[in-house]
Amino acid sequence: MWLHTSCELKFNITCPTPFVLMLRPRSGAQQWVASEEYLLYPSVPAFEFTDDFGNLCQRLVAMPGDFTISTSANIETADVIDQAPGGGFVDVQNLPDTVLKYLLPSRYCESDRFGDMATEITANQLLGYDQVAAIERWLYNNVSFEPGSSPLPLSAIEVNQQKIGVCRDFAHLGIALCRSLSIPARMVVGYLYGLQPMELHAWFEAYVADRWYTFDATQPVKNGGSVAIGYGRDAADVAIYNQFGPPVFPIEQNVTVSIINP
Amino acid sequence: MWLHTSCELKFNITCPTPFVLMLRPRSGAQQWVASEEYLLYPSVPAFEFTDDFGNLCQRLVAMPGDFTISTSANIETADVIDQAPGGGFVDVQNLPDTVLKYLLPSRYCESDRFGDMATEITANQLLGYDQVAAIERWLYNNVSFEPGSSPLPLSAIEVNQQKIGVCRDFAHLGIALCRSLSIPARMVVGYLYGLQPMELHAWFEAYVADRWYTFDATQPVKNGGSVAIGYGRDAADVAIYNQFGPPVFPIEQNVTVSIINP
Amino acid sequence: MWLHTSCELKFNITCPTPFVLMLRPRSGAQQWVASEEYLLYPSVPAFEFTDDFGNLCQRLVAMPGDFTISTSANIETADVIDQAPGGGFVDVQNLPDTVLKYLLPSRYCESDRFGDMATEITANQLLGYDQVAAIERWLYNNVSFEPGSSPLPLSAIEVNQQKIGVCRDFAHLGIALCRSLSIPARMVVGYLYGLQPMELHAWFEAYVADRWYTFDATQPVKNGGSVAIGYGRDAADVAIYNQFGPPVFPIEQNVTVSIINP
Amino acid sequence: MWLHTSCELKFNITCPTPFVLMLRPRSGAQQWVASEEYLLYPSVPAFEFTDDFGNLCQRLVAMPGDFTISTSANIETADVIDQAPGGGFVDVQNLPDTVLKYLLPSRYCESDRFGDMATEITANQLLGYDQVAAIERWLYNNVSFEPGSSPLPLSAIEVNQQKIGVCRDFAHLGIALCRSLSIPARMVVGYLYGLQPMELHAWFEAYVADRWYTFDATQPVKNGGSVAIGYGRDAADVAIYNQFGPPVFPIEQNVTVSIINP
Repeated sequence: MWLHTSCELKFNITCPTPFVLMLRPRSGAQQWVASEEYLLYPSVPAFEFTDDFGNLCQRLVAMPGDFTISTSANIETADVIDQAPGGGFVDVQNLPDTVLKYLLPSRYCESDRFGDMATEITANQLLGYDQVAAIERWLYNNVSFEPGSSPLPLSAIEVNQQKIGVCRDFAHLGIALCRSLSIPARMVVGYLYGLQPMELHAWFEAYVADRWYTFDATQPVKNGGSVAIGYGRDAADVAIYNQFGPPVFPIEQNVTVSIINP
Repeated sequence: MWLHTSCELKFNITCPTPFVLMLRPRSGAQQWVASEEYLLYPSVPAFEFTDDFGNLCQRLVAMPGDFTISTSANIETADVIDQAPGGGFVDVQNLPDTVLKYLLPSRYCESDRFGDMATEITANQLLGYDQVAAIERWLYNNVSFEPGSSPLPLSAIEVNQQKIGVCRDFAHLGIALCRSLSIPARMVVGYLYGLQPMELHAWFEAYVADRWYTFDATQPVKNGGSVAIGYGRDAADVAIYNQFGPPVFPIEQNVTVSIINP
Repeated sequence: MWLHTSCELKFNITCPTPFVLMLRPRSGAQQWVASEEYLLYPSVPAFEFTDDFGNLCQRLVAMPGDFTISTSANIETADVIDQAPGGGFVDVQNLPDTVLKYLLPSRYCESDRFGDMATEITANQLLGYDQVAAIERWLYNNVSFEPGSSPLPLSAIEVNQQKIGVCRDFAHLGIALCRSLSIPARMVVGYLYGLQPMELHAWFEAYVADRWYTFDATQPVKNGGSVAIGYGRDAADVAIYNQFGPPVFPIEQNVTVSIINP
Repeated sequence: MWLHTSCELKFNITCPTPFVLMLRPRSGAQQWVASEEYLLYPSVPAFEFTDDFGNLCQRLVAMPGDFTISTSANIETADVIDQAPGGGFVDVQNLPDTVLKYLLPSRYCESDRFGDMATEITANQLLGYDQVAAIERWLYNNVSFEPGSSPLPLSAIEVNQQKIGVCRDFAHLGIALCRSLSIPARMVVGYLYGLQPMELHAWFEAYVADRWYTFDATQPVKNGGSVAIGYGRDAADVAIYNQFGPPVFPIEQNVTVSIINP
C-alpha cells in the first residue's frame, strides 16, 4: 500500500525559539520512504541527529514572525496489521537486551501502579498476545475516544481516572498495563490512512511471540495503512515538536494521508 | 581519593525470578575502577549488556532459596565537587545532541508542570549554574531529608506535596525544576563517603557552563568522595535492581564505603 | 548554496543479488536535505538501517532482469570550504572518544607504514592544520588525478607506488599520511558541484583545531558545493553499493549536480 | 570452567606517551567476569570509554620512566567450544544489521582479493559452517604456526605468501577467506587456557547457523577455556594497546592463565 502523507505546522513566533522536531519518517523494517520533503518558511539553519530510539530529529531556532514547517512523503506500508492470537509471552530472561527498556515505567506510563488492574483485565487469557488483545479490547470498551479532549498528554493514571482521551492517552494506558505484566510496550506516533478526523495519530506496540505487534484501541478494525514517524517509551519521547522558552502553539496544523500509485 | 565500596544484597526467592541489575561501577571521565568484584551465591548464569546511558547492566534468573549478590570495588574519585558560580546557561540550540534527552519529562520528574515554581525559586539569579544552586538551596531548606521515609520512589509532584523524602526523591524534584527552566538534568545513583546512615545514595547533575556539574541537596557541604554506579533520567532508569514476577524484597542490604591507600 | 543532486544506477541482474547501498544523504551539521527521492525499478522490498558511522544504508535483493536505482535530492550546503591555517594539532589525549577510531589503520589506509614519508612531507610545518595542508599540496603536485584510471580502490601503498589515481585513491593516501602523524582522518563520499567529469566524488577530512576540516587534493581551489553521502574510515566503509554473490557491474551510472533556487 | 587470567606490561617511557589500551575483559553472553583488577604503576589519570564494538578501552598518558600496567581477572567461561557441523549459510539479506560490517574488507583482511582461493578450499562443502571448518583445516595444514615469527601484524595477503605466522596472522587469513564467501567473520583477542607458549592469543569467529561460532586454526583440538578481551574486524581494531608518538615497546610482557575454584 502506497501512501502520500503531509503535515504542515504554522506558528506565530514572538521571540527566537529553539525547537527539536520529529517529523521525518524513516525507512526501516516496517516501511519504505520513497520520497520526502521537509521545507521551512522562512528558511533557517536546521540540523539533524538520531536519538536513542533511532528517530531522526531536527534542531532549529525559529525567528519572530510567521514560521511554517511543511513536510510530506510517499511511503510504502503494509495493507493489514499482523496479528498472532495465542502468540506466547517472552520470558524476561529471553528478551533482547534492546527491548528491556520498554519494561520500565516512564513519564506517562506509570506501570509500577497497574499490576492488579492488568491482572484482572487479562484473567483467563493465555500469557502473551492474548493478554495484550484483552487490554486493547478493554480500552476500546471502557475509555471514550474523543479527539481534541486533552490538549496535553494524560498519564495512564489520569486516563484511567477520566476514562476519556485522545489516541495518545489510550496508548499510555495500554502501555502501562502491558508493562505491569512484564510485557514490553512502546509508543508509536505517525499517520493512519482513513483516520477520522484526520490528524497525527498514536498507537502502541507490544513485544510478544518474539517480535513487536501493533495495537490500537481507538480503532474498531485492524486495518493497515499506518506510517510511523517516531518510536519511544511514551509521548515524552516522541513529541512531534519540543519547543523551549515561552510557550508557542501552532496556529494551524494540517495533516493529510491519501493512497497513491507508486 | 581512593575508596573501597561494597554492596551486598540478600534475597529469599520463592519462584524463579528474572533480575536486571545495575551494580557494576564503570571507569569513565569521573572515576577510575582499579578493581572490582561481583559475586553470586549460589552461582547462576549472568549476562551483561550496556544500556542507552552507558551503564553496565547484569541479567540473571535467581532460583528459589537464599540468593546473595555481593559486590565491591576500589575506586579513585575526586576529593572535592567542582563548582562554577556564575557559570552560564547553555542555550538549547548549543547543547550537544546527546544531552537533549535530559530536557524531557520522565517517570518521576514531571518537569512539564514545574515552570512557575522554578521561575519563582530562581528569581534574580544569573541564568545557569546559579539557578541550579538556588534550586539546591531551596530543596535543602524546604524539604526534610528523612532516610527510610519512602520505600518506593516519589515523583517530583509527590515530593513537592509531602516536603519530605529520601535522597532519590530530592533528586527527582531538583531535576524536574531544572528541566522546566530548559537546563538539562540527570540522576546519578552511587556511593558517598561519609553518608549518614550509610546506604546507596542518589544525587543529580545539571548541564551548565558547557559540562555536567554535581548537585546534592541532601548534604550541607560540597565534599567529594562520590562513586557513580549509574546515570539516567530518573530512578526508573537507574534502579539498582529491577525484578520481574511476584515482588521480592531484599532481606538484607549492606553498604560500606571506606578510604583506602591505593 | 542549494544543489540538486541525482544518481542513477542501472544493472542487468542474472541471479537474485543482495545489495547493501549507501545512497541517501542525511541532514546533519554540514548540510540540510530539504527533499529527496529513492526509487527502485522494478520495486522490491527494501529495508534501511544506520551503520556505526551514522550513514543510512539500504538493504534489498535485486531480481534477475534490468534493475535501476534512481535517487535525487535538494540540499543546502556551504558556499566555501572552511580553512584554518595555523590551526593546532590536538593531542591524542584530548581527542573526543568518538574520533579515536580514525587514528587506526584501515583496509585502504595502511597508516602504520607511512610515518617517515609523512614526517618528510610535513617538515617545517606547524603541527596541525598546516601539516594536513602540506600533505594535500604534496598529493596535488605528485600524484596524477586521472578519473577512470582505477576501477577498484587502491590502497595508500598502491597509490604511492603508482603516483596516479582517482579521487578515492587520493583520499586513501592523504588519510594514511595524516593518521601516521596521529592526526585523525576519515573519508567522505558524495557529490561536488562543478566536478569534471561529473561523477560521484570522494575526499577526506582531518581533525585539527578541535573539529573536522575538509581536504581535497584533486581540486586546485577550495570551492564549496559538496554534498556528503557517507563517512567512514576508507572506501571499504563507504561503498555506494556492496553487492554479494557473483559480481554485478552497473551498465550505466549517471550523476548530476546543479544549482537551484530553494 | 573458572579461570584466573593476568597480563602485565612493562614499559620504559622516554617522553609523555598517550596510550589507548584494551585490557579489561567484559562480561557478556560468552563469559562472566566475577572480579578484575587494573593497576597502573606509577598511578596516572586514566579514562575509559566503549568503542563501536562494545570493547572497554582505557586512555592515559604514560610519563617518562618505568611504567607498568598490571591486570588480572577471575572469569567463568565455557568448557568446550560449540560446534555445528552442517550448520547453514545465512543469506546476506537475512543477516542482522549489526553483523553486516563483518562482511567488509579491513586493514589486515583483504577479503576482496580471496574469492577464488576460498572457493577452491571449500569446494564440495555444504554452504555455511562446513565451509568455515574447511578453511580452518586448510590453515592448520598449510600455514606454520610459529609464535614470535612476526612482530607486526601480517595481512591475509602477506600470510598467504609467507605461509607462516602467529595466531593473529592465522585469524587474518581465516577471516579474509570467510568474508570472500559472504560469511561474516571477526577477530577476537584474549586468553586461552593451556596455550603453549603462554601469551595473549587471537582467533576468529564466523557467523553461520544464525550465531557466531569460534574457530582457531592454531590449535589441534577444540578445547574451551578461552576468555575474550576484545572483538573487532581485525588486529587494527583490537590492539591490546595503541601508543602514539615515538614508538615504545614493552620491555616485559607476562601472561598467565590458570584454573581456579570459584
